[in-house]
Amino acid sequence: MRTHTDYLSFTTRQRHELINITERIAAIVAASKVTEGMCLVSAMHITAGIWVNDEESGLKQDVMEWLEELAPEGDYRHHQTGEDNADAHLKRTLVHHQVVLPITKGALDLGPWEQVFYAEFDGQRKKRVVVKILGE
Amino acid sequence: MRTHTDYLSFTTRQRHELINITERIAAIVAASKVTEGMCLVSAMHITAGIWVNDEESGLKQDVMEWLEELAPEGDYRHHQTGEDNADAHLKRTLVHHQVVLPITKGALDLGPWEQVFYAEFDGQRKKRVVVKILGE
Amino acid sequence: MRTHTDYLSFTTRQRHELINITERIAAIVAASKVTEGMCLVSAMHITAGIWVNDEESGLKQDVMEWLEELAPEGDYRHHQTGEDNADAHLKRTLVHHQVVLPITKGALDLGPWEQVFYAEFDGQRKKRVVVKILGE
Repeated sequence: MRTHTDYLSFTTRQRHELINITERIAAIVAASKVTEGMCLVSAMHITAGIWVNDEESGLKQDVMEWLEELAPEGDYRHHQTGEDNADAHLKRTLVHHQVVLPITKGALDLGPWEQVFYAEFDGQRKKRVVVKILGE
Repeated sequence: MRTHTDYLSFTTRQRHELINITERIAAIVAASKVTEGMCLVSAMHITAGIWVNDEESGLKQDVMEWLEELAPEGDYRHHQTGEDNADAHLKRTLVHHQVVLPITKGALDLGPWEQVFYAEFDGQRKKRVVVKILGE
Repeated sequence: MRTHTDYLSFTTRQRHELINITERIAAIVAASKVTEGMCLVSAMHITAGIWVNDEESGLKQDVMEWLEELAPEGDYRHHQTGEDNADAHLKRTLVHHQVVLPITKGALDLGPWEQVFYAEFDGQRKKRVVVKILGE
């Protein structure tokens, strides 16, 4: 049995950003030497998530606008602590903050259009993602 | 350590459909000979998801109507590519596209009413689900 | 390879409750003797979920009020069966019902503010969470 752990760091330019990390995850899987297993990708900061969907610029704008409708910036109790990012906590909840990717024959076993995105909802500061691989 | 990989295919009659796949997953777990482990079930197409909930026809209609309210069919930027299914990408995001099922004593370790559904939001063509099992 | 299985039980006082279970999960990880691996935490009842976010009372109220807006109590088809909790099934769907936590060097590998919550949406009766650990 093999296990492998790595971390990715992000400091986005924009407050909201979708960053395609599929190739970076594939490189970590290759480094792990795991050929059959599972790869957990999980955003460690509670105002970011992981989204597996399409590398299509229109859809990427659609999803960000739609998240803004369902979890808008605004006035929340959380802001009484001095924070201003409650909406980002809710957006992370909607897209979910993690994914488990299957590894088959040494590669990510993704569908034809599945791409893995780091979804930042309160960026412009350093944040991390943990990648944990288990298998053989 | 054992690993096991299988795939399910679906070509639904309706555009939107919930298909109970619990028994098919249980059969794959039995074939894997894994008695303690985890079973990842993940929709490989980005307009479908996996939902773990109740086999009750009223609730199944409720959830589909509710998804239509939160992520309605309509006009999206994604449709400038010729596609017409942006809402299906958003519905997949809401229900999430995957689940990890525990395997204990050779069987799926589900709660009393937990059933596993393939949630199709843009069907009528062939789509796949990957099942990846890890354990001993 | 090691596997370890445990269950947590909850009978909440309120119908809706968020219960921080991070320390209870950490204790199960310690008992498992797994130092590198994954820990699945999954709500077994279909009206409860697992939420990984901030231990901040304002935000906890914010998320519960926001879930009530997106998945309100009300009249659903499911209630024709005699049930009155369709909204709880939908709230479980929004927060998702499970999480996979990485285990690194013998401990939960969480971000600086990540805390694990049991999210009850139809409590006041006994319900369970399964904890399944895989690793070495």
